[in-house]
Amino acid sequence: MTGGPPISKEAAADQRALDRVLDAIGPLDAGAMAEAAARLDRLTKPPGSLGQLETIVIELAGITGRTDATVERGVIVVAAADHGVVRQGVSVYPSDVTAQMVANFVAGGAAINVLGGWAGIRVVVVDAGVASPIPEVSADPVRGGRLVRARIRDGTADMTAGPAMSRAEALRAVATGIDLAGQLWADGLDILGVGEMGIGNTTAASALTAALLRSSPNAVCGRGTGLDEAGLARKRAVVWRALEANNVSAHDPLGAVAGVGGFEIAALVGLVLGCAANRVAVLVDGFITAAAAMTAVCVEGRCREALIASHLSPEPGHRLLLEALQLEPLLDLELRLGEGSGAALALPLVLSAAAILTEMASFEGAGVTDAGA
Amino acid sequence: MTGGPPISKEAAADQRALDRVLDAIGPLDAGAMAEAAARLDRLTKPPGSLGQLETIVIELAGITGRTDATVERGVIVVAAADHGVVRQGVSVYPSDVTAQMVANFVAGGAAINVLGGWAGIRVVVVDAGVASPIPEVSADPVRGGRLVRARIRDGTADMTAGPAMSRAEALRAVATGIDLAGQLWADGLDILGVGEMGIGNTTAASALTAALLRSSPNAVCGRGTGLDEAGLARKRAVVWRALEANNVSAHDPLGAVAGVGGFEIAALVGLVLGCAANRVAVLVDGFITAAAAMTAVCVEGRCREALIASHLSPEPGHRLLLEALQLEPLLDLELRLGEGSGAALALPLVLSAAAILTEMASFEGAGVTDAGA
Repeated sequence: MTGGPPISKEAAADQRALDRVLDAIGPLDAGAMAEAAARLDRLTKPPGSLGQLETIVIELAGITGRTDATVERGVIVVAAADHGVVRQGVSVYPSDVTAQMVANFVAGGAAINVLGGWAGIRVVVVDAGVASPIPEVSADPVRGGRLVRARIRDGTADMTAGPAMSRAEALRAVATGIDLAGQLWADGLDILGVGEMGIGNTTAASALTAALLRSSPNAVCGRGTGLDEAGLARKRAVVWRALEANNVSAHDPLGAVAGVGGFEIAALVGLVLGCAANRVAVLVDGFITAAAAMTAVCVEGRCREALIASHLSPEPGHRLLLEALQLEPLLDLELRLGEGSGAALALPLVLSAAAILTEMASFEGAGVTDAGA
Repeated sequence: MTGGPPISKEAAADQRALDRVLDAIGPLDAGAMAEAAARLDRLTKPPGSLGQLETIVIELAGITGRTDATVERGVIVVAAADHGVVRQGVSVYPSDVTAQMVANFVAGGAAINVLGGWAGIRVVVVDAGVASPIPEVSADPVRGGRLVRARIRDGTADMTAGPAMSRAEALRAVATGIDLAGQLWADGLDILGVGEMGIGNTTAASALTAALLRSSPNAVCGRGTGLDEAGLARKRAVVWRALEANNVSAHDPLGAVAGVGGFEIAALVGLVLGCAANRVAVLVDGFITAAAAMTAVCVEGRCREALIASHLSPEPGHRLLLEALQLEPLLDLELRLGEGSGAALALPLVLSAAAILTEMASFEGAGVTDAGA
């Protein structure tokens, strides 16, 4: 935030909130990781036989700094916003669908409600910048999402004609995410799954990814929710124009989000940073949430260690991001829905891996002969 | 069962039970599959966006013949037995561990109890031919496995010196599995996960796989629960000798199980056939259960359509079997534990996919604009 115009009181407060969180993000707890690894080898199973789940168990110990704690309270936050770039014809769905789907999340009828509900996961929906009014619906008391109204503005500006939002607005959205992470943590949160909803947001995420990774938009862009060949070509051209209109790079991640991101992406950046600061693991969903996670890592590299990748989607940019983040996805099911659906599907894997450490019997305790004995 | 020695009354009854089940196995219900596919496209998500989960939903409709039914009651059966071939030094664990682990399953301390318990899955343990007495333990009332005592004999004979068991014993074990599938179905079973426990059983499964797929033991054998290079070489040599000592092939799958299989593998063959006959989906776990599933498919090809592959393990034979069965695994987490652990981890994916069909809102019902509207 140096060299810009004079900033408002509000922006200064948001910046202080961000600075506090950045100061609080620490490294993984190596002692807890070693203790978890040693304990895993005393349990009644061949050493390492739970594969990638054992890696997750050790990582969770490093993030939380504990090996005795149950990791069981999961929440999925679905950040929603609209994108001015939709007027360039980059989605097969109209912008109105964002507000309609937010209502669907509250009513409990969307995929994330069903998948989250199955696994006993609470869903929280954040309106970070939806363009239309959210239709009134009756909330499903069991699996309906709790709506957090934190709209920065009614959708972004068209990024092909200039920045999607101002720097102060980007900071405001990040601070909103930080604040929500803190609230959820205070309510007792063991792991956060992040999801999103926003018609046009694979285009914004593609531009952001191309900027942060210095990749060609042609390599990053995919078909989103169902573009045909002509639609894909148009999307690529739109991303090229957005990058020409906005001078963005990984050296200024907040400026990159302001230029070619979205309000939901900026809020997700804050959620990732806030969770990392509170030693809460973050389960990344698909392409858009991975772009937000990458942005957070550009802001503060240590927050990478709090990330777990739930799945690999068919969006080409998603693979590039996971490679850059050095994250190994738990699932590869060709999911391309968003909403946090991949995070909801992977959360049971993570939670049951965590249960292994605290609930399984040891060789000695169960009277089972260990190898070589 | 033609051309063999005169058969006993018991063997004749087992053969009739098998014949009845084979007659009952029908094809997938194409109408239910078309209905499920059409319904999936009316739900509030881009068409096909749940990827492989949508394939599973459609397959489940084909297996059960229904699109309105909830698929929610899952059981994991862990079939356990011992292997005479262990005396050839093919495992890093002694045979006693099989009985000790059966006790651990009952007491609720094993990985399958923790993973199954997390997902609310009942565990049933079948002693199909363990060599030692099962240690007495107090059963955990919540997540402890129910023990079914159906021991055919105290472990198989050493297959490098002749058949592991007689044909009649193999048939008895298959009939035991068929019977258990029928009981579980009568109790209300929507989906069965199959698992196993048996020190030395990756060696038996390797010999069986090599026989059924006409593959080289060198290509099939892996490190099991932790063999070193010398152990792996010994295991390969043992499998070659077992195949020399037993003239087995896919043309006589029951003879192959008798020659180089195991009691738990034969019981699993019966479970697969019994579930297919009752239109119950079977979630295959790792290498050993896949070898049993392959055997069942050699007995009756139509039962392949009732199979869902939970995961891909690092055992090279497992990949060969899944390719031959044309099954796409849901998970690839380098699990090599057995017990049904992969099935327990994949079951939440299958059950939440099933919930999508019955619980999600449609575009029309939720007032969400569909693409192109």
